Amino acid sequence: ALVAELSMAPEDAPSSTAPDVAPAVRDAEALRVTITAGPTHEALDPVRYLSNHSSGKMGYALAEAWARRGAKVRLISGPVALATPTDVERVDVTSASEMLAAAEHAVTESDIFIGCAAVADYRAETVAEHKLKKTDASETLTLTLVKNPDIVAEIAARSPRPLVVGFAAETRDVERYARDKLTRKGMDMIVANDVSQAGLGFGADDNAALLLWRVGDGTDSQALPPQPKTTLADAIVDRVLTLYAHRAPTAHD
Amino acid sequence: ALVAELSMAPEDAPSSTAPDVAPAVRDAEALRVTITAGPTHEALDPVRYLSNHSSGKMGYALAEAWARRGAKVRLISGPVALATPTDVERVDVTSASEMLAAAEHAVTESDIFIGCAAVADYRAETVAEHKLKKTDASETLTLTLVKNPDIVAEIAARSPRPLVVGFAAETRDVERYARDKLTRKGMDMIVANDVSQAGLGFGADDNAALLLWRVGDGTDSQALPPQPKTTLADAIVDRVLTLYAHRAPTAHD
Repeated sequence: ALVAELSMAPEDAPSSTAPDVAPAVRDAEALRVTITAGPTHEALDPVRYLSNHSSGKMGYALAEAWARRGAKVRLISGPVALATPTDVERVDVTSASEMLAAAEHAVTESDIFIGCAAVADYRAETVAEHKLKKTDASETLTLTLVKNPDIVAEIAARSPRPLVVGFAAETRDVERYARDKLTRKGMDMIVANDVSQAGLGFGADDNAALLLWRVGDGTDSQALPPQPKTTLADAIVDRVLTLYAHRAPTAHD
Repeated sequence: ALVAELSMAPEDAPSSTAPDVAPAVRDAEALRVTITAGPTHEALDPVRYLSNHSSGKMGYALAEAWARRGAKVRLISGPVALATPTDVERVDVTSASEMLAAAEHAVTESDIFIGCAAVADYRAETVAEHKLKKTDASETLTLTLVKNPDIVAEIAARSPRPLVVGFAAETRDVERYARDKLTRKGMDMIVANDVSQAGLGFGADDNAALLLWRVGDGTDSQALPPQPKTTLADAIVDRVLTLYAHRAPTAHD
Protein backbone atom coordinates (compact mmCIF):
# COMPACT_ATOMS: atom_id res chain seq x y z
CA ALA A 1 0.00 0.00 0.00
CA LEU A 2 2.89 2.33 0.75
CA VAL A 3 4.41 1.70 -2.66
CA ALA A 4 1.05 2.35 -4.32
CA GLU A 5 0.65 5.58 -2.39
CA LEU A 6 4.15 6.73 -3.26
CA SER A 7 3.61 6.03 -6.92
CA MET A 8 0.44 8.11 -6.76
CA ALA A 9 2.23 11.16 -5.30
CA PRO A 10 2.64 13.38 -8.34
CA GLU A 11 5.68 15.62 -8.69
CA ASP A 12 3.73 18.05 -10.82
CA ALA A 13 0.15 17.39 -9.81
CA PRO A 14 -2.53 18.64 -12.18
CA SER A 15 -4.74 21.30 -10.64
CA SER A 16 -7.63 18.85 -10.72
CA THR A 17 -6.00 17.01 -7.79
CA ALA A 18 -7.75 19.44 -5.47
CA PRO A 19 -7.81 18.96 -1.69
CA ASP A 20 -11.60 18.59 -1.77
CA VAL A 21 -11.31 15.29 -3.63
CA ALA A 22 -11.97 12.32 -1.35
CA PRO A 23 -8.96 10.20 -0.34
CA ALA A 24 -8.23 7.47 -2.86
CA VAL A 25 -10.26 4.31 -2.44
CA ARG A 26 -8.73 1.83 -4.83
CA ASP A 27 -12.04 0.16 -5.72
CA ALA A 28 -11.37 0.04 -9.49
CA GLU A 29 -8.04 -1.75 -9.27
CA ALA A 30 -8.68 -4.66 -11.64
CA LEU A 31 -10.44 -2.58 -14.32
CA ARG A 32 -9.20 -1.41 -17.71
CA VAL A 33 -10.96 1.81 -18.70
CA THR A 34 -10.79 3.64 -22.04
CA ILE A 35 -11.99 7.25 -22.12
CA THR A 36 -12.32 9.67 -25.05
CA ALA A 37 -12.12 13.39 -24.25
CA GLY A 38 -11.99 16.82 -25.82
CA PRO A 39 -13.21 17.98 -29.23
CA THR A 40 -12.19 16.68 -32.63
CA HIS A 41 -10.96 18.96 -35.39
CA GLU A 42 -12.16 18.17 -38.91
CA ALA A 43 -9.88 19.79 -41.49
CA LEU A 44 -11.41 21.76 -44.36
CA ASP A 45 -7.98 22.67 -45.77
CA PRO A 46 -4.49 23.01 -44.22
CA VAL A 47 -5.54 26.01 -42.07
CA ARG A 48 -9.31 25.78 -41.52
CA TYR A 49 -11.30 23.28 -39.50
CA LEU A 50 -14.71 22.54 -38.06
CA SER A 51 -14.96 21.79 -34.35
CA ASN A 52 -17.10 21.64 -31.23
CA HIS A 53 -16.78 23.47 -27.94
CA SER A 54 -15.08 21.13 -25.47
CA SER A 55 -12.33 21.94 -23.00
CA GLY A 56 -11.78 18.23 -22.27
CA LYS A 57 -12.06 18.97 -18.52
CA MET A 58 -14.84 16.42 -17.83
CA GLY A 59 -13.04 13.58 -19.64
CA TYR A 60 -9.74 14.43 -17.98
CA ALA A 61 -11.44 14.58 -14.56
CA LEU A 62 -12.90 11.11 -15.23
CA ALA A 63 -9.48 9.76 -16.27
CA GLU A 64 -7.94 11.19 -13.11
CA ALA A 65 -10.71 9.73 -10.90
CA TRP A 66 -10.47 6.23 -12.43
CA ALA A 67 -6.65 6.25 -12.17
CA ARG A 68 -6.75 7.46 -8.55
CA ARG A 69 -9.13 4.58 -7.78
CA GLY A 70 -6.69 2.09 -9.26
CA ALA A 71 -7.97 1.48 -12.81
CA LYS A 72 -5.64 1.12 -15.79
CA VAL A 73 -6.71 4.15 -17.83
CA ARG A 74 -6.19 4.92 -21.51
CA LEU A 75 -7.26 8.47 -22.42
CA ILE A 76 -7.86 9.13 -26.13
CA SER A 77 -7.73 12.89 -26.40
CA GLY A 78 -8.61 15.43 -29.07
CA PRO A 79 -6.77 18.79 -29.15
CA VAL A 80 -6.97 20.35 -25.67
CA ALA A 81 -4.75 22.50 -23.44
CA LEU A 82 -4.67 20.16 -20.43
CA ALA A 83 -1.91 18.24 -18.66
CA THR A 84 -2.10 14.45 -18.69
CA PRO A 85 -3.35 13.16 -15.30
CA THR A 86 -0.94 11.05 -13.22
CA ASP A 87 -0.83 7.34 -14.10
CA VAL A 88 -2.93 7.79 -17.24
CA GLU A 89 -1.83 6.60 -20.70
CA ARG A 90 -2.74 9.33 -23.17
CA VAL A 91 -3.17 8.91 -26.93
CA ASP A 92 -3.52 12.17 -28.91
CA VAL A 93 -5.77 12.29 -31.97
CA THR A 94 -7.19 15.09 -34.13
CA SER A 95 -10.16 13.90 -36.19
CA ALA A 96 -13.17 11.68 -35.44
CA SER A 97 -11.80 9.00 -37.78
CA GLU A 98 -8.52 8.92 -35.85
CA MET A 99 -10.41 8.82 -32.55
CA LEU A 100 -12.52 5.86 -33.73
CA ALA A 101 -9.43 3.93 -34.83
CA ALA A 102 -7.73 4.54 -31.46
CA ALA A 103 -10.93 3.55 -29.59
CA GLU A 104 -11.41 0.35 -31.61
CA HIS A 105 -7.81 -0.59 -30.90
CA ALA A 106 -8.14 0.14 -27.16
CA VAL A 107 -11.48 -1.56 -26.45
CA THR A 108 -10.29 -5.04 -27.37
CA GLU A 109 -8.61 -4.88 -23.96
CA SER A 110 -11.10 -2.72 -22.04
CA ASP A 111 -13.72 -3.53 -19.42
CA ILE A 112 -15.32 -0.09 -19.59
CA PHE A 113 -15.52 2.46 -22.43
CA ILE A 114 -16.53 6.05 -21.69
CA GLY A 115 -17.17 8.26 -24.72
CA CYS A 116 -16.84 11.75 -23.25
CA ALA A 117 -15.37 13.47 -26.33
CA ALA A 118 -17.43 16.08 -28.21
CA VAL A 119 -16.90 14.37 -31.54
CA ALA A 120 -17.69 16.46 -34.61
CA ASP A 121 -20.79 14.95 -36.24
CA TYR A 122 -19.69 15.96 -39.73
CA ARG A 123 -16.47 16.38 -41.67
CA ALA A 124 -15.76 17.97 -45.03
CA GLU A 125 -16.59 15.74 -47.99
CA THR A 126 -13.22 16.64 -49.50
CA VAL A 127 -10.23 18.21 -47.75
CA ALA A 128 -8.41 20.77 -49.92
CA GLU A 129 -4.68 20.14 -50.19
CA HIS A 130 -3.87 23.86 -50.31
CA LYS A 131 -5.41 26.80 -48.49
CA LEU A 132 -8.72 27.76 -50.13
CA LYS A 133 -8.31 31.26 -51.57
CA LYS A 134 -11.22 33.60 -51.26
CA THR A 135 -11.88 35.67 -54.33
CA ASP A 136 -13.93 38.82 -54.63
CA ALA A 137 -16.26 36.93 -56.95
CA SER A 138 -17.44 34.55 -54.26
CA GLU A 139 -19.36 36.29 -51.50
CA THR A 140 -20.61 32.95 -50.24
CA LEU A 141 -19.03 29.54 -49.90
CA THR A 142 -20.95 26.28 -49.83
CA LEU A 143 -19.45 23.43 -47.87
CA THR A 144 -20.65 19.88 -48.28
CA LEU A 145 -20.21 17.89 -45.10
CA VAL A 146 -20.59 14.15 -44.61
CA LYS A 147 -21.46 12.28 -41.43
CA ASN A 148 -18.63 11.14 -39.19
CA PRO A 149 -18.65 7.67 -37.64
CA ASP A 150 -20.56 7.58 -34.35
CA ILE A 151 -17.81 6.32 -32.05
CA VAL A 152 -19.93 5.33 -29.04
CA ALA A 153 -22.48 3.51 -31.23
CA GLU A 154 -19.68 1.70 -33.11
CA ILE A 155 -18.11 0.52 -29.84
CA ALA A 156 -21.52 -0.49 -28.42
CA ALA A 157 -22.22 -2.57 -31.54
CA ARG A 158 -19.08 -4.69 -31.12
CA SER A 159 -19.15 -8.22 -29.72
CA PRO A 160 -17.69 -8.84 -27.24
CA ARG A 161 -17.78 -5.30 -25.98
CA PRO A 162 -17.00 -3.36 -22.80
CA LEU A 163 -19.59 -1.60 -20.64
CA VAL A 164 -20.37 1.50 -22.72
CA VAL A 165 -21.05 4.94 -21.24
CA GLY A 166 -21.84 7.91 -23.46
CA PHE A 167 -22.41 11.62 -22.96
CA ALA A 168 -25.11 13.92 -24.30
CA ALA A 169 -24.73 17.68 -24.43
CA GLU A 170 -28.07 19.27 -25.13
CA THR A 171 -29.56 22.74 -25.09
CA ARG A 172 -33.20 21.64 -24.62
CA ASP A 173 -35.34 18.56 -23.89
CA VAL A 174 -32.28 17.07 -22.21
CA GLU A 175 -33.87 13.95 -20.73
CA ARG A 176 -35.86 13.09 -23.85
CA TYR A 177 -32.88 13.40 -26.22
CA ALA A 178 -30.61 11.55 -23.77
CA ARG A 179 -33.01 8.62 -23.30
CA ASP A 180 -33.43 8.33 -27.06
CA LYS A 181 -29.65 8.35 -27.54
CA LEU A 182 -29.10 5.72 -24.80
CA THR A 183 -31.45 3.29 -26.54
CA ARG A 184 -30.67 4.08 -30.17
CA LYS A 185 -26.89 3.79 -29.72
CA GLY A 186 -27.07 0.69 -27.52
CA MET A 187 -25.20 2.22 -24.59
CA ASP A 188 -25.41 0.94 -21.01
CA MET A 189 -25.48 4.41 -19.47
CA ILE A 190 -25.56 8.04 -20.57
CA VAL A 191 -24.44 11.21 -18.79
CA ALA A 192 -26.64 14.10 -19.94
CA ASN A 193 -25.73 17.76 -19.56
CA ASP A 194 -27.79 20.85 -20.23
CA VAL A 195 -25.08 23.00 -21.83
CA SER A 196 -27.38 26.03 -22.07
CA GLN A 197 -26.97 26.69 -18.33
CA ALA A 198 -24.54 29.55 -17.61
CA GLY A 199 -21.36 28.57 -15.76
CA LEU A 200 -21.82 24.86 -16.42
CA GLY A 201 -20.65 22.52 -19.15
CA PHE A 202 -18.26 23.50 -21.94
CA GLY A 203 -15.09 25.14 -20.65
CA ALA A 204 -16.45 25.54 -17.13
CA ASP A 205 -14.98 23.89 -14.03
CA ASP A 206 -18.43 22.95 -12.72
CA ASN A 207 -21.09 20.76 -14.21
CA ALA A 208 -24.41 19.13 -13.38
CA ALA A 209 -25.58 15.88 -14.91
CA LEU A 210 -28.48 13.52 -15.27
CA LEU A 211 -27.39 9.86 -15.31
CA LEU A 212 -29.66 7.46 -17.20
CA TRP A 213 -29.04 3.72 -17.43
CA ARG A 214 -30.92 0.72 -18.70
CA VAL A 215 -32.81 -1.56 -16.33
CA GLY A 216 -34.46 -4.42 -18.16
CA ASP A 217 -36.64 -2.81 -20.84
CA GLY A 218 -36.75 0.55 -19.08
CA THR A 219 -34.36 3.11 -17.63
CA ASP A 220 -33.44 4.36 -14.20
CA SER A 221 -31.93 7.76 -13.45
CA GLN A 222 -29.99 9.84 -10.95
CA ALA A 223 -29.68 13.65 -10.96
CA LEU A 224 -26.31 15.03 -9.89
CA PRO A 225 -26.48 18.70 -8.80
CA PRO A 226 -24.02 21.39 -9.99
CA GLN A 227 -20.56 20.66 -8.56
CA PRO A 228 -16.88 20.70 -9.58
CA LYS A 229 -16.15 18.34 -12.49
CA THR A 230 -13.66 16.53 -10.20
CA THR A 231 -16.31 15.47 -7.65
CA LEU A 232 -18.86 14.87 -10.41
CA ALA A 233 -16.34 12.47 -11.95
CA ASP A 234 -16.24 10.44 -8.72
CA ALA A 235 -20.05 10.25 -8.60
CA ILE A 236 -20.09 8.99 -12.21
CA VAL A 237 -17.40 6.40 -11.40
CA ASP A 238 -19.49 5.22 -8.42
CA ARG A 239 -22.51 4.63 -10.66
CA VAL A 240 -20.47 2.91 -13.40
CA LEU A 241 -18.89 0.57 -10.83
CA THR A 242 -22.35 -0.41 -9.55
CA LEU A 243 -23.58 -1.08 -13.10
CA TYR A 244 -20.43 -3.04 -13.92
CA ALA A 245 -20.82 -5.20 -10.78
CA HIS A 246 -24.40 -6.07 -11.77
CA ARG A 247 -23.69 -6.48 -15.45
CA ALA A 248 -25.40 -9.55 -16.92
CA PRO A 249 -22.76 -12.05 -18.10
CA THR A 250 -24.53 -12.27 -21.46
CA ALA A 251 -23.77 -8.63 -22.14
CA HIS A 252 -20.16 -9.65 -22.64
CA ASP A 253 -20.76 -11.62 -25.83
CA ALA B 1 13.69 54.46 -14.84
CA LEU B 2 13.84 52.47 -11.62
CA VAL B 3 10.08 52.68 -11.25
CA ALA B 4 9.65 51.58 -14.85
CA GLU B 5 11.99 48.64 -14.31
CA LEU B 6 10.23 47.61 -11.13
CA SER B 7 6.87 47.71 -12.80
CA MET B 8 8.30 45.52 -15.55
CA ALA B 9 9.43 42.81 -13.11
CA PRO B 10 6.69 40.23 -13.42
CA GLU B 11 5.74 38.09 -10.46
CA ASP B 12 4.44 35.40 -12.74
CA ALA B 13 6.44 35.96 -15.89
CA PRO B 14 5.05 34.31 -19.02
CA SER B 15 7.30 31.62 -20.43
CA SER B 16 7.92 33.85 -23.43
CA THR B 17 10.13 36.05 -21.21
CA ALA B 18 12.98 33.69 -21.94
CA PRO B 19 16.60 34.46 -20.95
CA ASP B 20 17.64 34.54 -24.63
CA VAL B 21 15.58 37.67 -25.22
CA ALA B 22 17.75 40.78 -25.49
CA PRO B 23 17.66 43.21 -22.53
CA ALA B 24 14.85 45.72 -22.84
CA VAL B 25 15.63 48.76 -24.97
CA ARG B 26 12.71 51.11 -24.42
CA ASP B 27 12.75 52.46 -28.00
CA ALA B 28 8.95 52.28 -28.46
CA GLU B 29 8.05 54.32 -25.38
CA ALA B 30 5.75 56.90 -26.96
CA LEU B 31 3.88 54.48 -29.21
CA ARG B 32 0.36 53.07 -28.90
CA VAL B 33 0.19 49.66 -30.56
CA THR B 34 -2.91 47.54 -31.20
CA ILE B 35 -2.37 43.86 -32.03
CA THR B 36 -4.88 41.16 -32.96
CA ALA B 37 -3.91 37.56 -32.17
CA GLY B 38 -5.20 34.01 -32.17
CA PRO B 39 -8.00 32.45 -34.22
CA THR B 40 -11.64 33.47 -34.36
CA HIS B 41 -14.47 31.01 -33.75
CA GLU B 42 -17.52 31.37 -35.97
CA ALA B 43 -20.52 29.69 -34.37
CA LEU B 44 -22.67 27.34 -36.44
CA ASP B 45 -24.94 26.55 -33.47
CA PRO B 46 -24.44 26.61 -29.67
CA VAL B 47 -21.88 23.78 -29.78
CA ARG B 48 -20.28 23.77 -33.25
CA TYR B 49 -17.95 26.30 -34.80
CA LEU B 50 -15.65 26.93 -37.71
CA SER B 51 -12.08 28.02 -36.97
CA ASN B 52 -8.50 28.34 -38.15
CA HIS B 53 -5.33 26.88 -36.73
CA SER B 54 -3.64 29.56 -34.63
CA SER B 55 -2.05 29.19 -31.22
CA GLY B 56 -1.77 32.97 -30.83
CA LYS B 57 1.92 32.57 -29.94
CA MET B 58 3.21 34.96 -32.63
CA GLY B 59 0.76 37.76 -31.72
CA TYR B 60 1.41 37.30 -28.00
CA ALA B 61 5.18 37.35 -28.63
CA LEU B 62 4.72 40.62 -30.52
CA ALA B 63 2.62 42.11 -27.71
CA GLU B 64 5.27 41.08 -25.19
CA ALA B 65 8.09 42.56 -27.33
CA TRP B 66 6.31 45.90 -27.85
CA ALA B 67 5.44 46.17 -24.14
CA ARG B 68 9.01 45.31 -23.09
CA ARG B 69 10.25 48.06 -25.39
CA GLY B 70 7.92 50.57 -23.73
CA ALA B 71 4.89 50.76 -26.04
CA LYS B 72 1.34 50.98 -24.72
CA VAL B 73 -0.09 47.72 -26.05
CA ARG B 74 -3.68 46.63 -26.54
CA LEU B 75 -3.98 42.96 -27.49
CA ILE B 76 -7.28 41.91 -29.09
CA SER B 77 -7.30 38.15 -28.66
CA GLY B 78 -9.39 35.32 -30.05
CA PRO B 79 -9.78 32.10 -27.98
CA VAL B 80 -6.29 30.88 -27.01
CA ALA B 81 -4.68 29.11 -24.07
CA LEU B 82 -2.00 31.72 -23.35
CA ALA B 83 -1.27 33.99 -20.37
CA THR B 84 -1.53 37.74 -20.95
CA PRO B 85 1.98 39.26 -21.27
CA THR B 86 3.05 41.72 -18.57
CA ASP B 87 1.91 45.33 -19.05
CA VAL B 88 -0.40 44.42 -21.93
CA GLU B 89 -4.10 45.36 -21.99
CA ARG B 90 -5.98 42.34 -23.32
CA VAL B 91 -9.46 42.36 -24.87
CA ASP B 92 -11.00 38.91 -25.46
CA VAL B 93 -13.23 38.34 -28.47
CA THR B 94 -14.66 35.26 -30.18
CA SER B 95 -15.84 36.04 -33.71
CA ALA B 96 -14.38 38.10 -36.57
CA SER B 97 -17.21 40.63 -36.22
CA GLU B 98 -16.36 41.14 -32.54
CA MET B 99 -12.66 41.42 -33.39
CA LEU B 100 -13.38 44.09 -36.03
CA ALA B 101 -15.48 46.10 -33.58
CA ALA B 102 -12.72 45.96 -30.94
CA ALA B 103 -10.07 46.90 -33.53
CA GLU B 104 -12.07 49.84 -34.88
CA HIS B 105 -12.53 51.10 -31.34
CA ALA B 106 -8.83 50.72 -30.50
CA VAL B 107 -7.27 52.22 -33.63
CA THR B 108 -8.76 55.67 -33.10
CA GLU B 109 -5.99 55.98 -30.50
CA SER B 110 -3.28 53.83 -32.10
CA ASP B 111 -0.06 54.70 -33.90
CA ILE B 112 0.50 51.16 -35.15
CA PHE B 113 -1.96 48.35 -35.93
CA ILE B 114 -0.69 44.79 -36.34
CA GLY B 115 -3.22 42.26 -37.62
CA CYS B 116 -1.70 38.96 -36.54
CA ALA B 117 -4.93 37.05 -35.87
CA ALA B 118 -5.91 34.14 -38.11
CA VAL B 119 -9.38 35.55 -38.75
CA ALA B 120 -11.92 33.11 -40.19
CA ASP B 121 -12.67 34.24 -43.75
CA TYR B 122 -16.23 32.96 -43.60
CA ARG B 123 -18.99 32.58 -41.05
CA ALA B 124 -22.30 30.72 -41.18
CA GLU B 125 -25.03 32.60 -43.03
CA THR B 126 -27.39 31.79 -40.15
CA VAL B 127 -26.49 30.62 -36.65
CA ALA B 128 -28.88 28.01 -35.27
CA GLU B 129 -30.26 28.90 -31.84
CA HIS B 130 -30.33 25.26 -30.75
CA LYS B 131 -27.96 22.40 -31.43
CA LEU B 132 -28.48 21.04 -34.95
CA LYS B 133 -29.71 17.46 -34.65
CA LYS B 134 -28.40 14.96 -37.10
CA THR B 135 -30.98 12.56 -38.41
CA ASP B 136 -30.44 9.26 -40.13
CA ALA B 137 -32.08 10.72 -43.21
CA SER B 138 -29.35 13.28 -43.77
CA GLU B 139 -26.05 11.66 -44.66
CA THR B 140 -24.71 15.00 -45.83
CA LEU B 141 -25.11 18.54 -44.56
CA THR B 142 -24.71 21.63 -46.70
CA LEU B 143 -23.49 24.76 -44.99
CA THR B 144 -23.79 28.16 -46.60
CA LEU B 145 -21.03 30.48 -45.45
CA VAL B 146 -20.74 34.21 -46.04
CA LYS B 147 -17.60 36.33 -46.14
CA ASN B 148 -16.39 37.87 -42.92
CA PRO B 149 -15.15 41.47 -42.83
CA ASP B 150 -11.46 41.77 -43.71
CA ILE B 151 -10.19 43.44 -40.54
CA VAL B 152 -6.75 44.55 -41.78
CA ALA B 153 -8.22 45.97 -45.01
CA GLU B 154 -10.97 47.78 -43.06
CA ILE B 155 -8.42 49.38 -40.73
CA ALA B 156 -6.11 50.28 -43.65
CA ALA B 157 -9.02 52.00 -45.44
CA ARG B 158 -9.70 54.37 -42.53
CA SER B 159 -8.61 57.99 -42.50
CA PRO B 160 -6.73 58.95 -40.43
CA ARG B 161 -5.23 55.55 -39.83
CA PRO B 162 -2.29 53.99 -38.00
CA LEU B 163 0.65 52.29 -39.69
CA VAL B 164 -0.87 48.95 -40.72
CA VAL B 165 0.99 45.63 -40.61
CA GLY B 166 -0.66 42.42 -41.76
CA PHE B 167 0.25 38.74 -41.78
CA ALA B 168 -0.06 36.16 -44.54
CA ALA B 169 -0.03 32.42 -43.85
CA GLU B 170 0.39 30.55 -47.10
CA THR B 171 1.12 27.01 -48.15
CA ARG B 172 2.57 27.88 -51.59
CA ASP B 173 3.70 30.85 -53.72
CA VAL B 174 4.27 32.71 -50.45
CA GLU B 175 5.93 35.84 -51.85
CA ARG B 176 3.48 36.27 -54.72
CA TYR B 177 0.36 35.94 -52.55
CA ALA B 178 1.88 38.17 -49.85
CA ARG B 179 2.85 40.95 -52.28
CA ASP B 180 -0.63 40.86 -53.80
CA LYS B 181 -2.20 41.04 -50.33
CA LEU B 182 0.06 43.95 -49.27
CA THR B 183 -1.10 46.05 -52.24
CA ARG B 184 -4.72 44.96 -52.45
CA LYS B 185 -5.44 45.57 -48.76
CA GLY B 186 -3.50 48.84 -48.60
CA MET B 187 -1.16 47.72 -45.79
CA ASP B 188 2.21 49.32 -45.08
CA MET B 189 3.96 46.03 -44.39
CA ILE B 190 3.20 42.31 -44.43
CA VAL B 191 4.79 39.41 -42.57
CA ALA B 192 4.55 36.29 -44.71
CA ASN B 193 4.92 32.74 -43.41
CA ASP B 194 5.10 29.47 -45.26
CA VAL B 195 2.93 27.36 -42.96
CA SER B 196 3.60 24.18 -44.91
CA GLN B 197 7.09 23.91 -43.40
CA ALA B 198 7.25 21.29 -40.63
CA GLY B 199 7.98 22.65 -37.15
CA LEU B 200 7.24 26.26 -38.12
CA GLY B 201 4.13 28.42 -38.00
CA PHE B 202 0.81 27.35 -36.44
CA GLY B 203 1.23 26.03 -32.92
CA ALA B 204 5.03 25.87 -33.15
CA ASP B 205 7.41 27.90 -30.99
CA ASP B 206 9.61 28.74 -33.98
CA ASN B 207 8.84 30.60 -37.15
CA ALA B 208 10.49 32.08 -40.22
CA ALA B 209 9.16 35.08 -42.09
CA LEU B 210 9.50 37.18 -45.18
CA LEU B 211 8.87 40.87 -44.48
CA LEU B 212 7.58 42.92 -47.42
CA TRP B 213 6.91 46.65 -47.27
CA ARG B 214 6.03 49.38 -49.69
CA VAL B 215 8.68 51.75 -51.04
CA GLY B 216 7.19 54.30 -53.41
CA ASP B 217 5.43 52.29 -56.12
CA GLY B 218 7.36 49.12 -55.38
CA THR B 219 8.24 46.89 -52.46
CA ASP B 220 11.34 46.05 -50.47
CA SER B 221 11.84 42.85 -48.48
CA GLN B 222 13.80 41.15 -45.70
CA ALA B 223 13.98 37.40 -45.06
CA LEU B 224 14.09 36.35 -41.40
CA PRO B 225 15.43 32.79 -40.91
CA PRO B 226 13.75 30.17 -38.65
CA GLN B 227 14.03 31.26 -35.02
CA PRO B 228 11.96 31.38 -31.82
CA LYS B 229 8.82 33.50 -32.17
CA THR B 230 10.13 35.68 -29.30
CA THR B 231 13.27 36.80 -31.19
CA LEU B 232 11.35 36.95 -34.48
CA ALA B 233 8.97 39.37 -32.74
CA ASP B 234 11.87 41.70 -31.88
CA ALA B 235 13.10 41.63 -35.51
CA ILE B 236 9.58 42.53 -36.71
CA VAL B 237 9.37 45.36 -34.14
CA ASP B 238 12.75 46.68 -35.40
CA ARG B 239 11.47 46.85 -38.98
CA VAL B 240 8.14 48.43 -37.99
CA LEU B 241 9.94 51.10 -35.95
CA THR B 242 12.12 51.97 -38.98
CA LEU B 243 9.05 52.21 -41.23
CA TYR B 244 7.21 54.30 -38.65
CA ALA B 245 10.14 56.71 -38.33
CA HIS B 246 10.20 57.23 -42.11
CA ARG B 247 6.46 57.34 -42.53
CA ALA B 248 5.32 60.15 -44.83
CA PRO B 249 3.25 62.67 -42.84
CA THR B 250 0.52 62.45 -45.51
CA ALA B 251 -0.08 58.81 -44.63
CA HIS B 252 -1.70 60.01 -41.41
CA ASP B 253 -4.67 61.67 -43.08
